[in-house]
Amino acid sequence: MALIVHKYGGTSMGSVERIKNVAKRVAKWRQAGHKLVVVPSAMSGETNRLLALAKEISSQPDPRELDVIAATGEQVSVGLLSIALQEAGVDAVSYAGWQVPVRTDSAFTKARISEIDSERIMRDLDAGKVVVITGFQGVDPEGHITTLGRGGSDTSAVAIAAALEADECLIFTDVDGVYTTDPRVVEEARRLDRVTFEEMLEMASLGSKVLQIRSVEFAGKYRVKTRVLSSLTDPMIALEEEMNSGTLITFEEDETMEKAVISGIAFQRDEARIAVRGVPDKPGIAYQILGPVADANIDVDMIIQNQSVQGKTDFTFTVPRNEYQRAMDILTNSVKGHISAEEVVGDPKVSKVSVVGVGMRSHVGIASKMFRTLAEEGINIQMIATSEIKISVLIDEKYMELAVRALHKAFELDQI
Amino acid sequence: MALIVHKYGGTSMGSVERIKNVAKRVAKWRQAGHKLVVVPSAMSGETNRLLALAKEISSQPDPRELDVIAATGEQVSVGLLSIALQEAGVDAVSYAGWQVPVRTDSAFTKARISEIDSERIMRDLDAGKVVVITGFQGVDPEGHITTLGRGGSDTSAVAIAAALEADECLIFTDVDGVYTTDPRVVEEARRLDRVTFEEMLEMASLGSKVLQIRSVEFAGKYRVKTRVLSSLTDPMIALEEEMNSGTLITFEEDETMEKAVISGIAFQRDEARIAVRGVPDKPGIAYQILGPVADANIDVDMIIQNQSVQGKTDFTFTVPRNEYQRAMDILTNSVKGHISAEEVVGDPKVSKVSVVGVGMRSHVGIASKMFRTLAEEGINIQMIATSEIKISVLIDEKYMELAVRALHKAFELDQI
Repeated sequence: MALIVHKYGGTSMGSVERIKNVAKRVAKWRQAGHKLVVVPSAMSGETNRLLALAKEISSQPDPRELDVIAATGEQVSVGLLSIALQEAGVDAVSYAGWQVPVRTDSAFTKARISEIDSERIMRDLDAGKVVVITGFQGVDPEGHITTLGRGGSDTSAVAIAAALEADECLIFTDVDGVYTTDPRVVEEARRLDRVTFEEMLEMASLGSKVLQIRSVEFAGKYRVKTRVLSSLTDPMIALEEEMNSGTLITFEEDETMEKAVISGIAFQRDEARIAVRGVPDKPGIAYQILGPVADANIDVDMIIQNQSVQGKTDFTFTVPRNEYQRAMDILTNSVKGHISAEEVVGDPKVSKVSVVGVGMRSHVGIASKMFRTLAEEGINIQMIATSEIKISVLIDEKYMELAVRALHKAFELDQI
Repeated sequence: MALIVHKYGGTSMGSVERIKNVAKRVAKWRQAGHKLVVVPSAMSGETNRLLALAKEISSQPDPRELDVIAATGEQVSVGLLSIALQEAGVDAVSYAGWQVPVRTDSAFTKARISEIDSERIMRDLDAGKVVVITGFQGVDPEGHITTLGRGGSDTSAVAIAAALEADECLIFTDVDGVYTTDPRVVEEARRLDRVTFEEMLEMASLGSKVLQIRSVEFAGKYRVKTRVLSSLTDPMIALEEEMNSGTLITFEEDETMEKAVISGIAFQRDEARIAVRGVPDKPGIAYQILGPVADANIDVDMIIQNQSVQGKTDFTFTVPRNEYQRAMDILTNSVKGHISAEEVVGDPKVSKVSVVGVGMRSHVGIASKMFRTLAEEGINIQMIATSEIKISVLIDEKYMELAVRALHKAFELDQI
C-alpha cells in the first residue's frame, strides 16, 4: 500500500462528466489499497472568468482581493470532486488551502509555499478517506488567502507530496508526458519516458508548459518521485499500465540517458529585450539598473553586459513580454537620468530557444553545432546564455518555429 | 459618526454594473464620515448554479461539501465589491466568514451563528477601512466551512451588527420595504413605515420573503435597529432621504401602530399536511411521532391533536412541502408500526394564511372576522393556530390568493 498524490488540471475537471471520470480513476487507485490525496485545479475557464469580472471593475485590481476571488475556483472543484467520489462509493473529504493549512508568504497572486501541516491529512488518510485539497492556494501568516500564480496547482500537489513523504506524485494532464519539444511546432517530437529533474527544470523555465517551474523545484528539493501522465485515457485503464505511462522525472542519470546528449528543445515565445546604452562603467551599475526592475516584481532572465569602451558600457537583458512596457517606463522615467545612461531601447518581439540535456556536460561541440544550425537557416543570434545543461539563444520572434524545427532535426531528437 | 452595517442581496450584486452602484452607495455613506461594514450576497443566480453542479453529480450530495461549494459565491462577491470600493477611492478589505471568524455550529447547510469575533473588524474600521464580509457562512469548531441556509446573509448582517454594537443595520433589497402583504398577490398592498420586531418575526416565519427569520430573531434578541430599504434607487440619493426610507423594525409599539389592529397578511404557499390517524392515546405519543421527524431535521409547524375517542386520537401537523415525502416515509416505515397507528395520510397541496398585528392583543373579534371573511368566500379551514399577535389558518392551496385578497380588504389594509 502506497501513499499517492494525484493532481488533475482544469481540462480534466472541465465538466460534471469529466469530474465523474476523475472520481472513477481515483476510486480505482483507492480500491487497489492505496492512500490517496487528490489536488484538482479549477474547472477550465473558471479562473479566467473570475479574473475578467475583477478586470471589468478595475484595470489594476488589488492583488489581495484578486486572490480572494480566484481561490474560489479550486474550492468549487474540491467540493464537487468529493461529492463525485462519495457517489462512486469512496469516502472523501475536501479542504481549502487555509484548512490544511498550506502556509505561504504574503506575495499575493504569486505566493510561495513555506510549510504544509500534514497532521489533518494523515488523520483522514488513516481513517480510510481520500483527501481532496485545493491546488493553487494557501494562507499567509496574517490569515489572508493567497494564490501561487498560474499553474500553481502543480506546485501544490508536489509540495503536499513532499510534506506527506508520498511515494509518488502523479500529475494528470491533457498531454501524455514530456516531449523533446512542443509537438505543435515539430510534428516529429517524441515523448520521453524519463527526464532528469534538472532537465525538467530547464524545460519548464524555458517555456515547456507541462509543469509549473516551482513544482519541479519542489520535486527536486524534496526528491518527490513525480510522473506526468494523461488524464484522457479510459479511467478504468489497468493500474499496472497507468503506473508506467507518461514521463517520470528522475534524479539520477541512467545509462539510457547518457547516450542522448540532448533531451529536448525548449522555447519561450513571449520575450522582450531591453538595452540600456552608454552607461558609465562603475561598480554597482548592474544593481542600479536591475534593482528597480526587480522591486517592481518583474522577472529578469538573460543578462549581458558588454565590455567597456572609453569608460562606457551597454547593459542588455530580457523580461517577459507582458512586463515590457512597465519595465521600459521604470528605466526611462526613474533609472536613466539617475545613472546618466545615453538611451534605453528595446524590442518586444523576441523569442528564446534552448537545447537542454544532462549529457551536454560531458560532450563538447554542442554549442557550435547549435550555432551552425541556426546560421545555416539564416537566423541571427541576438543574445546567448549557457548553463551546465542548456544553451539558450535569443532570436527574432518570427524565426522561432524554424529554429526549433531545425535544432530538433540537427540533434536527431526525432530518432529513438 | 455612526457605525453602520449594510447588507446587499444577490440582485443588487447581480452584475459588474450593479456592484459598482453598490460601491457608489457605500462610498457616499463612508464620505459622510460613518464607519461601514458591508455584507453582500452571492451574485444572483450564482448559488443556484453551484448547487445545480453538485446535484448533477449526486442526487443527495454531502451537506458538508455543498457548503464548501456554496460558500464560494459570497467570497467572489466580497472580493469584487472591495475592488469596486477601492476603484471608487475608498479603502476596503474583504473577509470570508472563517477569517473574521464568524463561528457557527456544525449543522451544514443550515448552521447557526454562535459567536462573532469583532476584533479584526474593529481594527480595520479604526484604520479607516470599509470592511466587506461574506454573508451566509461561517466556520464550525472543527474548522469546517458552514452556510446558514437560504437568505442567511440577512442573518449574517444583523449578527455582525449585534457583535459590533452597530448603530443601525440597513438591509438593501429589491423591494422598498415591508408591505401589508405581497404586492404580487394584492395590488393594493401598502408599504409600512414601521413594523414591530414581533410582527416582523411572524411575517418572516409566515413566508413574507423580505428577511430571513433568523435575522429578525437576532435583531430582536440584540435590539439591532434594522431597516429594510431599496437598493434600486439612485445610489447618490441624499443620505438624509435614504436614512428615512424603507421600513424600520421597531421594538416598541408607538401610538400610530396602536390604531392599526392588523399590520399585514402573511402567507406560506408551499406547505403540506400530514395526519397520523387512530393512535392509542397515551403519554409520550406526540414525542414518538414528532421525534423521528425532528431528528431528520424536518421543520414541523402547525400541530393539532384531536380529543381522544374510545382511547384513540388523531395527530395532524404541517411540514414544508419539499420535506413532505421524506416525512411520510419516516412515519410510514418506522413510526406507524411502532405506535400502532391505523393510518398515515397527507395532502401536499395546502397553504397557510395569517393575519398579523400587535394591536390584536387588545382587540377582540379578529378571529371571528377572519373566519367569517373566509366563509363568505367559500373557503374551508383545515387547521387553525393562534399566537398573541397572529392567527393562522391552513387552506387548500388553490384558494390562497383569494383568501389573502379577501382578508387584506376586510381588515382595510389598503387604507392609510
